[in-house]
Amino acid sequence: MKKYIAEMLGTMVLVLMGCGTAVSLSCTSADPNLAATVIGTALAFGLSVVAMAYTIGGVSGCHINPAITLGCLLSGRMSGKDAGMYMLFQVIGAILGSAVLWVLTSNSGVSGTGANACQEGVSVTGALLAEIVFTFVFVLVVLGTTDAKKGAGNFAGLAIGLSLVLVHLACIRYTGTSVNPARSIGPALFQGGEALSQLWIFIVGPFIGAVLSAGAWKIVAGGKE
Amino acid sequence: MKKYIAEMLGTMVLVLMGCGTAVSLSCTSADPNLAATVIGTALAFGLSVVAMAYTIGGVSGCHINPAITLGCLLSGRMSGKDAGMYMLFQVIGAILGSAVLWVLTSNSGVSGTGANACQEGVSVTGALLAEIVFTFVFVLVVLGTTDAKKGAGNFAGLAIGLSLVLVHLACIRYTGTSVNPARSIGPALFQGGEALSQLWIFIVGPFIGAVLSAGAWKIVAGGKE
Amino acid sequence: MKKYIAEMLGTMVLVLMGCGTAVSLSCTSADPNLAATVIGTALAFGLSVVAMAYTIGGVSGCHINPAITLGCLLSGRMSGKDAGMYMLFQVIGAILGSAVLWVLTSNSGVSGTGANACQEGVSVTGALLAEIVFTFVFVLVVLGTTDAKKGAGNFAGLAIGLSLVLVHLACIRYTGTSVNPARSIGPALFQGGEALSQLWIFIVGPFIGAVLSAGAWKIVAGGKE
Amino acid sequence: MKKYIAEMLGTMVLVLMGCGTAVSLSCTSADPNLAATVIGTALAFGLSVVAMAYTIGGVSGCHINPAITLGCLLSGRMSGKDAGMYMLFQVIGAILGSAVLWVLTSNSGVSGTGANACQEGVSVTGALLAEIVFTFVFVLVVLGTTDAKKGAGNFAGLAIGLSLVLVHLACIRYTGTSVNPARSIGPALFQGGEALSQLWIFIVGPFIGAVLSAGAWKIVAGGKE
Repeated sequence: MKKYIAEMLGTMVLVLMGCGTAVSLSCTSADPNLAATVIGTALAFGLSVVAMAYTIGGVSGCHINPAITLGCLLSGRMSGKDAGMYMLFQVIGAILGSAVLWVLTSNSGVSGTGANACQEGVSVTGALLAEIVFTFVFVLVVLGTTDAKKGAGNFAGLAIGLSLVLVHLACIRYTGTSVNPARSIGPALFQGGEALSQLWIFIVGPFIGAVLSAGAWKIVAGGKE
Repeated sequence: MKKYIAEMLGTMVLVLMGCGTAVSLSCTSADPNLAATVIGTALAFGLSVVAMAYTIGGVSGCHINPAITLGCLLSGRMSGKDAGMYMLFQVIGAILGSAVLWVLTSNSGVSGTGANACQEGVSVTGALLAEIVFTFVFVLVVLGTTDAKKGAGNFAGLAIGLSLVLVHLACIRYTGTSVNPARSIGPALFQGGEALSQLWIFIVGPFIGAVLSAGAWKIVAGGKE
Repeated sequence: MKKYIAEMLGTMVLVLMGCGTAVSLSCTSADPNLAATVIGTALAFGLSVVAMAYTIGGVSGCHINPAITLGCLLSGRMSGKDAGMYMLFQVIGAILGSAVLWVLTSNSGVSGTGANACQEGVSVTGALLAEIVFTFVFVLVVLGTTDAKKGAGNFAGLAIGLSLVLVHLACIRYTGTSVNPARSIGPALFQGGEALSQLWIFIVGPFIGAVLSAGAWKIVAGGKE
Repeated sequence: MKKYIAEMLGTMVLVLMGCGTAVSLSCTSADPNLAATVIGTALAFGLSVVAMAYTIGGVSGCHINPAITLGCLLSGRMSGKDAGMYMLFQVIGAILGSAVLWVLTSNSGVSGTGANACQEGVSVTGALLAEIVFTFVFVLVVLGTTDAKKGAGNFAGLAIGLSLVLVHLACIRYTGTSVNPARSIGPALFQGGEALSQLWIFIVGPFIGAVLSAGAWKIVAGGKE
């Protein structure tokens, strides 16, 4: 049970801090004059993972992302029951994170939820492609760095967190960056409208990306040399 | 005695460098065009902790923050007497840090102290909530990463420092970010006015946040699996 | 074979994420008002290396750059046949990375490939000098940190990735920064024009830089004290 | 001899990359709209140290700064003869770094040397104070993290480099940040004028700061508990 609570707490922190920073900095992706708002938001999501990886990593492994949990399941690293419970508590945590942020902004004259959506000029196909491609990269890093034999040991948390910074730098321009269905569900419930009607993109896309990662890592690391 | 002097020195460095950078960059939180000033200030506070953690960590554990000391006390990791002495020397260090910064700016045509206050449009309730919530996240990372059994070993200093970068990215927009009563007391004494009349927020808020962290970590890591 | 596939995958990720971020942020080097676009792009290339170093490092050593492979060959750390295969798969990976980015941007109303070229006011001589000098620094870091006796152990991936951030900060102003022939070939094929006609600079320059690094490291670390 | 060459090479890289980035980004400290140029320059100096620490650390310890060498000498960690030779080769390396940068900029329509000087509105007293105070912090981190008993082991290079990022964030506004006499001598020779006439500030200030650090570290870590 403790590991499920850890996943809930970790995902709450990710959504609160990542989306919270996007809101604080008024993250805007298509205007080069505001590139610093993108960098700050990217750092916030990535450093949330660094922070949580070294805080709850010893309890639950710190997935805090259903796409990562799917990748681990497909790589035979956890049971289906555990995967389901992880995803459930991740979504609960994300909703809690959005709720805390909503209470905070409501009392501070600040607005926004950090919800994902197709950005300026980006089609649904473009957004879906972006989520597939960038989740593929992200979950590949997770599977590789945490590989029991060929992995990065204690450096994994740092490498994974910094790769989430990277993914946000490249992807915010397309969708605001989900690569994590739970991270999208929380804010969408509080934002409504387009964030809710496009929510499927941020569930389907990351899951497809994670499936591709599991396959690619099997090719690179599995079996014989 | 050496560990108290280390805490004093570390807190002095934190205030001098963190608040000093906020002053150097004219940190401004509500204008997205100036987001880089927020990022620079966030990096300064966080990297001060990274620097000090690996410098005085071996001497005092590098709390340099009364909220962290309270969290450690409530988690049964130190005696009440030691906690009191840590807090005392942290506050002395913070005042010294602000004094050095004041001498420096006075001789350089630069103004500002980096004091905390409710930012543009933020109510007292909003500010208090922000300090509670973000201190909760920060002290949770401290307690988790330094946990004797489930912690992050040598990576703790890095994870804690980067999580303070994170906390500043999300929180500067509300209060300028304290999450550390000593860090607020030093500049308030030199700034006076609003910084002094709102000082209670930055003592009460972080202490409440730290109490919540100690409770949460007990649930996640304590007792049986 | 697995190590060649790892090199292909790693170089694909480097080009997709690094060039992809340059495109997302509209990286512009000569205007100080847009310095954040340079920082974001620099972080993206460097963090791609951090991510891949800890993901595929255990499989192939993560060169993902023909200049690094040349430096390792000249330092007697790999066979000529392996070096050739590494370079071949790196170039294939880079082309794949550019192709994925092209599909993504084409569906998203975004344009650009992140190709290298002489920047505003920079002569061919200046560009060639920049690539030689900055590749020298980069490959020197690679050879030093991965040295079997005097190297940095598990920290090498982090040090190398952060040094690529550094190289981009200093070099983008001159050429957009290649220091990696594969990284230049991929985008040039999709960009055409000047990117293709100047491509030789980004093959010759990095290779000369790598030769100089191998020589310098031999002097610093080889033989007797 | 190898260690002296390593110091020369390391200091050359520090000056080339740090000052080179200041030039590339047109680093400007008093205008908050250009804060990103300060962040980029701060990252460049700090990451140069991270890169070199893990590259030549195993050969010479990677001082690449006469103030650090003075701090180590006063802490009884090296002989006077070695200290003198380190400083000599550091200065030679810095001049080489500035020379390479001069050749590069001359062929690229770029101007500047990254020399130190009192910044807008800063008096000589202010500049001297800034160099003393910030060198004190920087060398304290070096002495603490590399302490044989209480130090940070392999994390020292990262902590020291990140603390140099920190020092630049806080100090660029006053002097452009030296905290390293060699780093100031190189560019001043190529810049001339004010950079040369104010050069004494950037030799005297850092040396005073280093003396204070050696004393402070003796108090914190020396003798009994």
